[in-house]
Amino acid sequence: MTKPVKGFSKRSKKEKVSWIIDTFFQNNIDAEKIIKKYWNEDEKLQQLHDEFIENTITNYYLPFGVAPNFLINGTLHTIPMAIEESSVVAAASKAAKFWYDRGGFTTEVLGTTKIGQVHFLYEGCTKKLTAFFKQVVPKLLSSTQSITQNMEKRGGGITGITLKDKTDKLDNYYQIHCEFETLDAMGANFINSCLEQFAKTLKQEALLFDDFSNTEKNISIVMSILSNFTPNCLVKASVSCPVSDLKIGDISGEEFAQKFITAVKIAEIEPYRAVTHNKGIMNGIDAVVLATGNDFRAIEAGVHAYAAKGGQYKSLTHANIENGIFKFWIELPLALGTVGGLTKLHPLVKLALEILQKPNAKELMQIVAVAGLAQNFGALHSLTTTGIQKGHMKMHLMNILNQLGATKSEKTTIAAYFEGKTVTHSNVVTKFNEVRG
Amino acid sequence: MTKPVKGFSKRSKKEKVSWIIDTFFQNNIDAEKIIKKYWNEDEKLQQLHDEFIENTITNYYLPFGVAPNFLINGTLHTIPMAIEESSVVAAASKAAKFWYDRGGFTTEVLGTTKIGQVHFLYEGCTKKLTAFFKQVVPKLLSSTQSITQNMEKRGGGITGITLKDKTDKLDNYYQIHCEFETLDAMGANFINSCLEQFAKTLKQEALLFDDFSNTEKNISIVMSILSNFTPNCLVKASVSCPVSDLKIGDISGEEFAQKFITAVKIAEIEPYRAVTHNKGIMNGIDAVVLATGNDFRAIEAGVHAYAAKGGQYKSLTHANIENGIFKFWIELPLALGTVGGLTKLHPLVKLALEILQKPNAKELMQIVAVAGLAQNFGALHSLTTTGIQKGHMKMHLMNILNQLGATKSEKTTIAAYFEGKTVTHSNVVTKFNEVRG
Repeated sequence: MTKPVKGFSKRSKKEKVSWIIDTFFQNNIDAEKIIKKYWNEDEKLQQLHDEFIENTITNYYLPFGVAPNFLINGTLHTIPMAIEESSVVAAASKAAKFWYDRGGFTTEVLGTTKIGQVHFLYEGCTKKLTAFFKQVVPKLLSSTQSITQNMEKRGGGITGITLKDKTDKLDNYYQIHCEFETLDAMGANFINSCLEQFAKTLKQEALLFDDFSNTEKNISIVMSILSNFTPNCLVKASVSCPVSDLKIGDISGEEFAQKFITAVKIAEIEPYRAVTHNKGIMNGIDAVVLATGNDFRAIEAGVHAYAAKGGQYKSLTHANIENGIFKFWIELPLALGTVGGLTKLHPLVKLALEILQKPNAKELMQIVAVAGLAQNFGALHSLTTTGIQKGHMKMHLMNILNQLGATKSEKTTIAAYFEGKTVTHSNVVTKFNEVRG
Repeated sequence: MTKPVKGFSKRSKKEKVSWIIDTFFQNNIDAEKIIKKYWNEDEKLQQLHDEFIENTITNYYLPFGVAPNFLINGTLHTIPMAIEESSVVAAASKAAKFWYDRGGFTTEVLGTTKIGQVHFLYEGCTKKLTAFFKQVVPKLLSSTQSITQNMEKRGGGITGITLKDKTDKLDNYYQIHCEFETLDAMGANFINSCLEQFAKTLKQEALLFDDFSNTEKNISIVMSILSNFTPNCLVKASVSCPVSDLKIGDISGEEFAQKFITAVKIAEIEPYRAVTHNKGIMNGIDAVVLATGNDFRAIEAGVHAYAAKGGQYKSLTHANIENGIFKFWIELPLALGTVGGLTKLHPLVKLALEILQKPNAKELMQIVAVAGLAQNFGALHSLTTTGIQKGHMKMHLMNILNQLGATKSEKTTIAAYFEGKTVTHSNVVTKFNEVRG
């Protein structure tokens, strides 16, 4: 390929696939077969998926699994998860059952505020800008009425609008900092539409404000956009039980609890560990976020920024013992939606929400937080007892054997051989060749 | 559902699906149809995907698209992307073409070091521990030989091993902090296997160290695990051109560049903006990470922690003008692999890597960094000129119309009507009902 392709986006899907085959897979008809093998037979359904984004050539499969037995505030849930990483669903299910037997999970939504900002430059007297802003707020709000009326009917809308002077950080830089209640919608389109209207109105009205000089009238809008940093769209989930109920096999409850708490403390003070600790939490969280049609990049960005908000990157979970009671909890921002976006469009998202018994956004926040806490419990449980590789290696071994096309009986023989041994790709290949002979 | 389900993971896929249908979808045969509609016809292929994780019931579709025309260090690339968010592939393609016409992208890998740690508690004299550690290092290394030999043959392995005293942060807390070179593998299994072996050897050898008291001999391993914080597994990507070449429509190059640079500066100083700015970058990055079978949670955690490393969460991209040349660049950690994991198992991952012309890990780091930079360029371009809603709303409108089952001619009519108007779900439904009559 030495020349750019022109008008690619305007070609049909078939033409796009042909171009890819011609360009990258000369004399290789398998590639086209693979692309098409992943198309859904139902043309209408396939078209629906094709139109979610641009230049779609096929469907990328993520395994869609379920983790049952989550007791949350007294109600049993089965949690749908879309994730490619082995052990995540297994660990979630195991943690769910463990805490089912110990009273389950307790959750609470601490806030639902979402944030958006109009970033602009204003060259002039700050006092005059403040006076102008005070006067223009009603106009800003009324100019968004056609966008907000339905949200307001349902009890949401714009809940705060403030002028922020940021000129100490950057010359002439101010913000309109807004708060929103978007109820069951993630609300990105709603918030961005409001903000872009604010920007328009702000610019127009400034031209009419008599106290402004000509320079002052000329407000320059840099951009208008929601924030994925949502420290007040917050949820908490916890588990607790008497320390004595944590006895696991040969390990006493006291010993398990102390080691577990130490592992959490390390994640609270050591960033190298905290990042991985929280990564494990996100394994559980993103799996549900994806299955329920939410935007995992938005959730990831908000969560990690929250973990770093005190100036040092820290654990999202915490644990302690008080009066003989072990407690383990998570607190994190989750700006999720259960209406709009993909929630009605993607049939499997709809199915996932039905498995969750049609939660509203607040309920989903709580379920997702629980999935994160359960995942962290499972990870720390493994890490502080058997180590993480034992479980991973079992799955890893099976994946390698599948790739080698091992039969069921070959799998059994080889799995038995690797019990307690180190699984590496080359070790497995060697053993496989030996077994197959 | 009032009782937990027992032995769920041991049931067959069909039994799992039946349980879900019975439990959540009484009298609703559609749910079962939907689950099965997403199964691949090819049973063997389906089984492969089922076995990636536990309790798989079907395949979750993410659209798999391609963004062509990326000129990277003089070579043209077409970048595969798996992502559900509309506009991401379109923005990437647009940015690729824009920079193709201006010399393309330049990239550089700044480091490939990966990190892992054994976290342990030691109650005693630090000096003695230091002496012990110095003596035991050769044994630690030789005990991992069966794990490292293949990696070493290829030029990688354990590149650093240090004892760290963290007792100022937590009583008795020390680490073996290790550095690894894992070449084209992401290396999680390799690193974790080495670390678990280090922990075993450390504990055993401590028992034999004569200078230790009995308490000192009893080293307590808390956990052994890689870190997803990889600030020295780093890549840089940049674009540059004369400011005059940035003329876009009516906007002069100077005006565009100044506004663009202001937008980047805002993301450098204002965390509420920085989080969203970086979220947009991750739209591009995760799409390639997913398509190439890498772990996006690991990448997300590492990148956001890197953005927060200075104590305040900041932009990953930067921009300036020097001597009339506009420059825009990104620097971020990307611990990626092109062998192992899903790379050989998932047929579409294999295809994605073939479209990328079989990159090694370093080449993939550069391609992924470019996808992130391109995405940020596209987002800032839209944000600082037309606003982000114009493009989003067009896609949003089409999604709603698809959901309503609009015909091609209805789509054309309604799209024309909404040109310049605010798209909300209810507005579209009203208009759709009016058009259909």
